[in-house]
Amino acid sequence: VERGNQTRRLILRRTTDIASLEGLEALSLGRLATELQLSKSGVFALFGSKEELQLATVRAAAAIYVEHVVRPTLAVPAGLSRIWTLCEAWAAYSQGRIFPGGCFFQRVRSEFSSSPGPVRDAIVAVYDEWRDFIRTTIEGAQQIGDVEAGQDAEQLTFEISALLEAANDEAVLRDSLFPYDRARTAIRTRLLAIAPNPPEFLRVAG
Amino acid sequence: VERGNQTRRLILRRTTDIASLEGLEALSLGRLATELQLSKSGVFALFGSKEELQLATVRAAAAIYVEHVVRPTLAVPAGLSRIWTLCEAWAAYSQGRIFPGGCFFQRVRSEFSSSPGPVRDAIVAVYDEWRDFIRTTIEGAQQIGDVEAGQDAEQLTFEISALLEAANDEAVLRDSLFPYDRARTAIRTRLLAIAPNPPEFLRVAG
Repeated sequence: VERGNQTRRLILRRTTDIASLEGLEALSLGRLATELQLSKSGVFALFGSKEELQLATVRAAAAIYVEHVVRPTLAVPAGLSRIWTLCEAWAAYSQGRIFPGGCFFQRVRSEFSSSPGPVRDAIVAVYDEWRDFIRTTIEGAQQIGDVEAGQDAEQLTFEISALLEAANDEAVLRDSLFPYDRARTAIRTRLLAIAPNPPEFLRVAG
Repeated sequence: VERGNQTRRLILRRTTDIASLEGLEALSLGRLATELQLSKSGVFALFGSKEELQLATVRAAAAIYVEHVVRPTLAVPAGLSRIWTLCEAWAAYSQGRIFPGGCFFQRVRSEFSSSPGPVRDAIVAVYDEWRDFIRTTIEGAQQIGDVEAGQDAEQLTFEISALLEAANDEAVLRDSLFPYDRARTAIRTRLLAIAPNPPEFLRVAG
């Protein structure tokens, strides 16, 4: 069993990388068997079908995302500092190419956007959780008075997410770090306008 | 020759639609021949290779984009009204599913982001032109005093583009029109903050 689990982890570390570069449709049990020098029947025994492999890859990528973005954010106290940490952790995740093709979820969301089914549902579920996490982080800052209570947290969630994703898209396409600074500048300006007592780190950040 | 041109247009109208849903890698000369009831050799004679077909598809999509987004924007006088028209024309292009999968260029950019070569170069070139167009539109508004001269037009271009693209991504993924209002709200707020004399349509828009 332990050997099966090891093989499974080995395969999923490879499939998350491939999918971030070429998409989930580029995964095939045969290709993985060849690349990882495993038997095709062994890979098949672990995943059963291409769709199962795609779903397991989405789950594995979500776990890596939580580790690199959600966990460092939660390590900081609620408030503007946590919002800013969320943005910096996300930028580090994208910039550090934790997945070689940039953000795994932007790549596969685009691929499955018009393809209804279990894989698309799994991707949407991850996005829902991520959006909820951003919104909750903003609401936490509102509760302690770091962000004006009257601000629409859903709207701000849309905007922060839009700016981070655009930075990833631009950075990967042009192999440049500059888009991350564009996103930082925009988010900092936005937060400064709705923070009754902006902290020093926000005024000088970036 | 005219018949060849007609067939070429028929094929490219189909390939732009397919690529917006499934990506440019989903195009094959054989599939098109079958779907459009043409001979495979006839399709091959017109395009020669899959890469040629992909490049012709990008060019055809760019022409449709110009027709639906750039042309209506240029029909309006320079200034804030032209910036706002650009955003509304873009939203109409995305929302109207001029390409069934939403914005053609977001779909294929994501697909080729990590795949260097002529197709990626062609996609980047279209993005460069589009970004230049947004920036020039903003600078035109600055020149007539509609937008503060000290504002960084490149930064504003990044932000407007980020918000429009996020609206498209969200709207396609969730089959909802609401994300367009999120983008409108964000862009309106941003423009109102840097317009010395905001026009009525901007204060009540959306």
